[in-house]
Amino acid sequence: MKIDRLAVIGIGLLGGSVARAARPFARYIVGWDQAADVGLSACQTGILDENAPGLLEAVRGADVVVFCTPVDRIAEQVLAVASVCKPGALLTDVGSTKLDIVRATDGRVPAFVASHPLAGSEKMGFEHGRADLFDGRLVFVTPGRSTERGALSRVCAFWGEMGALVEVIEAEEHDRALALTSHLPHLVASALAGVLPAEWRRLTGTGFQDTTRLASGCPKLWTAIFRSNRVALLAALERMSGQLEEFRAALSAEDTDRINELLRLGKIARDGLPPLSARG
Amino acid sequence: MKIDRLAVIGIGLLGGSVARAARPFARYIVGWDQAADVGLSACQTGILDENAPGLLEAVRGADVVVFCTPVDRIAEQVLAVASVCKPGALLTDVGSTKLDIVRATDGRVPAFVASHPLAGSEKMGFEHGRADLFDGRLVFVTPGRSTERGALSRVCAFWGEMGALVEVIEAEEHDRALALTSHLPHLVASALAGVLPAEWRRLTGTGFQDTTRLASGCPKLWTAIFRSNRVALLAALERMSGQLEEFRAALSAEDTDRINELLRLGKIARDGLPPLSARG
Repeated sequence: MKIDRLAVIGIGLLGGSVARAARPFARYIVGWDQAADVGLSACQTGILDENAPGLLEAVRGADVVVFCTPVDRIAEQVLAVASVCKPGALLTDVGSTKLDIVRATDGRVPAFVASHPLAGSEKMGFEHGRADLFDGRLVFVTPGRSTERGALSRVCAFWGEMGALVEVIEAEEHDRALALTSHLPHLVASALAGVLPAEWRRLTGTGFQDTTRLASGCPKLWTAIFRSNRVALLAALERMSGQLEEFRAALSAEDTDRINELLRLGKIARDGLPPLSARG
Repeated sequence: MKIDRLAVIGIGLLGGSVARAARPFARYIVGWDQAADVGLSACQTGILDENAPGLLEAVRGADVVVFCTPVDRIAEQVLAVASVCKPGALLTDVGSTKLDIVRATDGRVPAFVASHPLAGSEKMGFEHGRADLFDGRLVFVTPGRSTERGALSRVCAFWGEMGALVEVIEAEEHDRALALTSHLPHLVASALAGVLPAEWRRLTGTGFQDTTRLASGCPKLWTAIFRSNRVALLAALERMSGQLEEFRAALSAEDTDRINELLRLGKIARDGLPPLSARG
């Protein structure tokens, strides 16, 4: 795959990583960020070839446009630029939730194919972006009913070129699954960090640090993700609360066998996760 | 600090790490494990100099005895060997809970000083032990009322020699704090892993993996820890459930400001944890 002109909308951790990872096969990379100084810095460090003055200017003439903005902005931006994009341009995004975005764009922008790389970091800003962020990682692609077939195969090739493993999945199933595999862990990490009294912070070790790592993520971005996937996240949270109640009941009753059984089931599930380097 | 004869009771991850970390200052290391083949293997790989045929034989003549057995076995083993240990011998342990152990031994074995290195791994077995496991890590030391002062200062020197940062703390406060900083994270990780349907395991990324890492720990060991710290862990779990209920209520009410505020407080707490390499 070769891209003559790539536009990256939103120059944060994901946008910075897309620009870096696409560099070997994108001749010219133009970017735009709501914060003009961010785009300028990204130009100065060579991640972008051009900092566009506005959203419409960024997408004009681009062969591929990747939206790396917060999930509550993506659909409106896709709709806003659709008529300006050149014929045959491919539009995609990296948003963590997909149903809202697919619903808002399906039937209106056939060249847009929603996607979601399951890759990121609790760090923020393009300066933390990495060319290998997508290497070996899953990227979900969630076409709508009206998505062009050619656009679908091109978006799969785009992520594949970055070393990702592409999984085509229904947006609704994506959101239900990710509520459990991504959004609930974030909520749980945040809640766990939130209940630690400040005076005991220094009494933590690697266990607490790892279990709460996600809590360092950007509250604003994650508030938008939680809102967008509210119903599925509430269902996931109910499962989690139910499981914690199982532990509480077993502890209260001093039911050693049941505690052991719950921990054993947790271990089986955790040990059953595929190693991240050996997927696909 | 120089030790002529060190006895390590229980040759698992912790016992194997104590033996490795003490090697530079312990002339002769004898070990004992309930599973005789474990002690033999540890001898063959050079971690131990001698595999004792029994618990009493292991401690006889030792200058320092470290109990690295499950928390529900330590107190009885300390009491069983106290009369056999040579005068002036120091006895300590690595158990994750301290109040039960201090209560059972205080006033009966003044040479025993309970301790707890906040270091470990979800891995099991002495072959995963590391000489640097305690390097830069906190070790809690929880003396009882009758603990000999000389024994207290020697146990601090012992862990200090291994590169650890020693924190002397009341056993009761230790257990209350660790319920939140260690035992609750383990329970939460296990519960989170436990609610993931098997068919979605392959849809996880680093976030789910990190948040649930602790769930891979040994169910039997952790059942004993949970039982031993039952009351404090139930209190910690109640705080966690309350925080999850805050999230649930905010999501249900679509209260964006409240969701953002909860995530912001979680981020402040997580970002406020001391870096593991810069403690003390």
